[in-house]
Amino acid sequence: MDTSSIRIKEDRLRQDLLDLGRFGETASGGIGRTALSDADLAARQWFKERMREGGLEVREDAAANIIGRMDPPSGSNGAPCIATGSHIDAVAQGGRYDGALGICAGLEALRAIRESGVSLPCPCELLVFTDEEGSHFAGTFGSRAMFKLLQEGEMEKSRGAGMASLAQDLKRMGKDPQKIAEATRSPSEFRAFLELHIEQGPVLEEMGVPIGIVDGIVHLGRYLIRVIGKSGHAGTTPMHLRDDALIKAAGIVTAVNEAVRCAGPEIVGTIGEFRVQPGAINIIPGRVEMSLDLRSMKEEKLTSVKRQIEKIVSSADKARMDTILTKGGVRMDPDVMMTVELSCRERGIPFHRMESGAGHDAMTFPMVNIPAGIIFIPCVGGKSHCPDEEIRFEDACLGAQVLADTMVRLAFRGPLHPLP
Amino acid sequence: MDTSSIRIKEDRLRQDLLDLGRFGETASGGIGRTALSDADLAARQWFKERMREGGLEVREDAAANIIGRMDPPSGSNGAPCIATGSHIDAVAQGGRYDGALGICAGLEALRAIRESGVSLPCPCELLVFTDEEGSHFAGTFGSRAMFKLLQEGEMEKSRGAGMASLAQDLKRMGKDPQKIAEATRSPSEFRAFLELHIEQGPVLEEMGVPIGIVDGIVHLGRYLIRVIGKSGHAGTTPMHLRDDALIKAAGIVTAVNEAVRCAGPEIVGTIGEFRVQPGAINIIPGRVEMSLDLRSMKEEKLTSVKRQIEKIVSSADKARMDTILTKGGVRMDPDVMMTVELSCRERGIPFHRMESGAGHDAMTFPMVNIPAGIIFIPCVGGKSHCPDEEIRFEDACLGAQVLADTMVRLAFRGPLHPLP
Repeated sequence: MDTSSIRIKEDRLRQDLLDLGRFGETASGGIGRTALSDADLAARQWFKERMREGGLEVREDAAANIIGRMDPPSGSNGAPCIATGSHIDAVAQGGRYDGALGICAGLEALRAIRESGVSLPCPCELLVFTDEEGSHFAGTFGSRAMFKLLQEGEMEKSRGAGMASLAQDLKRMGKDPQKIAEATRSPSEFRAFLELHIEQGPVLEEMGVPIGIVDGIVHLGRYLIRVIGKSGHAGTTPMHLRDDALIKAAGIVTAVNEAVRCAGPEIVGTIGEFRVQPGAINIIPGRVEMSLDLRSMKEEKLTSVKRQIEKIVSSADKARMDTILTKGGVRMDPDVMMTVELSCRERGIPFHRMESGAGHDAMTFPMVNIPAGIIFIPCVGGKSHCPDEEIRFEDACLGAQVLADTMVRLAFRGPLHPLP
Repeated sequence: MDTSSIRIKEDRLRQDLLDLGRFGETASGGIGRTALSDADLAARQWFKERMREGGLEVREDAAANIIGRMDPPSGSNGAPCIATGSHIDAVAQGGRYDGALGICAGLEALRAIRESGVSLPCPCELLVFTDEEGSHFAGTFGSRAMFKLLQEGEMEKSRGAGMASLAQDLKRMGKDPQKIAEATRSPSEFRAFLELHIEQGPVLEEMGVPIGIVDGIVHLGRYLIRVIGKSGHAGTTPMHLRDDALIKAAGIVTAVNEAVRCAGPEIVGTIGEFRVQPGAINIIPGRVEMSLDLRSMKEEKLTSVKRQIEKIVSSADKARMDTILTKGGVRMDPDVMMTVELSCRERGIPFHRMESGAGHDAMTFPMVNIPAGIIFIPCVGGKSHCPDEEIRFEDACLGAQVLADTMVRLAFRGPLHPLP
């Protein structure tokens, strides 16, 4: 398959990214564009216009997903489509590229395919999913709604008192949340799904490689570790009569870090929340609560490290560990990954096979047996979900190029074999 | 000197303590009686009445200190007085005995002395100081006002926006803060000052000893330790590319604790505040701030441990330590301490010489060369400044007895030699 006629236009892609980055722009240079906020609604309007200008047929489903379709030059033929996409919403204090890159590069890929004159044998779709970040309640809302994977009642829930639920915000934009089932599509409508996304980590930049091909999304385990001591006056309690919860907790932090590091590169572990009570300058800490977030592609690795940490915690005095949540990982489709790899090789673009520590809309597709792949580009300093999220535009172009090439290759292949 | 006729009445003392504990009582069983609050004003009214009933001549000075005077049976003779006292205010979520014990036991001591028929050669005073806890701004307000030791402008300051200053609350009770200097008294009016207080620590209870004789109040150093790392996504940042501020901070906590413990029993060190930023379950900590509170009777010990900790901090990556405040310690008067000791021996009451890790009104007196002493009784579980602050009433009686005996002994002694 010769894809050399497909040419991504850097200026056009860059301009779209910069224009989109103005919706919800904050004084700090970041983005405040949570799903279905006024800024998000405005961005959606603008992006739908860009999609139409790019020659796509645009509609919006009952879950507020935006669907742009490009039928083959020979007209609609009922063949399953090759889809790409991502989300347009951002976290509260987010950056310009998480999600935005995937939809802008997807649009540019479709434009480049059309302009190349390549005559595809099937339709292509660009999907802009609603509330991937879960600012209403749970993440990947739009993609899960598309395949009937929502939990009972989750649309009515919100993250906190006084915050709108998705049902409320759908009503606000004139949709009927009761009709959410109308968003459902059959997996047979899709031949494959591809998502281009920033890595949100430092690996590619560290390696100096512009493309990451994602093997899968990691298994996740989240835990709460509580350490009880005895609070007391900082001036009047001799050291030998103390039971300082922070001292014990510090030992646990160190031991947990050792355990995770010693388990090798296949697992990461993070203590991100750490609360000391009562937390006064002149009072010995009586209680510490900390979170533990473990992630690994290998479920058995995660389980064994978790067991090791449970031993560390239970050997400490008055400490306990409870599970907050566990979430199974997802493997991306091997055929799709190989096709992405081929596209990189053909263009001489260095790539790195890697896992994703974060979730994306693309992980919804393997759940309904649609072959899916994720392509990463580096983000500067590995920073994401913050105002100084940054990319190099040349990487964005390489990513869009690999995306376009891969979509065309997948379109011309026979049916892909989904994972068993 | 025979003090056997002086008999503390436990029922009377217990009833006063319980009655006083009803002013500002909260649902949790604690006390909300910050200085010059409505609860404090009501408690003051009630206590002045109790003082008058006890035969004291009561007045209030320009700093709202309550002064109860008992002249010798032979009438006022201009001799310097033996004073005792403490404070009636409590911290916001405080207990029933911090301060309250000292004024109730002081009143009981004076009543017992009067009832004993012992004819003292000098007056006695019971002093109830304003805002020892510093709920307006700085602590030991009333005792410092009495000896002109207030800082310029401190009466106009408050702890936070919307909180009243002492000047405002003095006005509210009909006093003129401009006339604060009228509260000033000459040190020559005092022969000695004694304060009975709960220990606010676990030492006496642990030893099973009912009386502590305080050698002095410790030197205090407070520091802020800041550790900078690099925040990043908990899922996408491999362990070897992390710079986790919490991991580094945990090492500092452990090393600081080791350093303080290895320095022996003459010093205590506490990390009480500990804030992790951004503090989200899925973000690697980028910054930790912690307080360090060091206290020792020996200034050189404090200095050497502080230097050691500075080395620990500076050897950590991107960590620094800054001084928040240092406060010199105070030595109590050796003659007064010996007299307290004698009073214990005469009654066969076990005692323990110790230091105080917390400040008290009694530390103001050595600053103006008035010989002063502090007597401790145990508090249950070492707990203080909390709703479950508790004492055993038999300890309170022993404390009041030692207080009364010591006051009488001091009254019959010649002039005491203040510290050089």
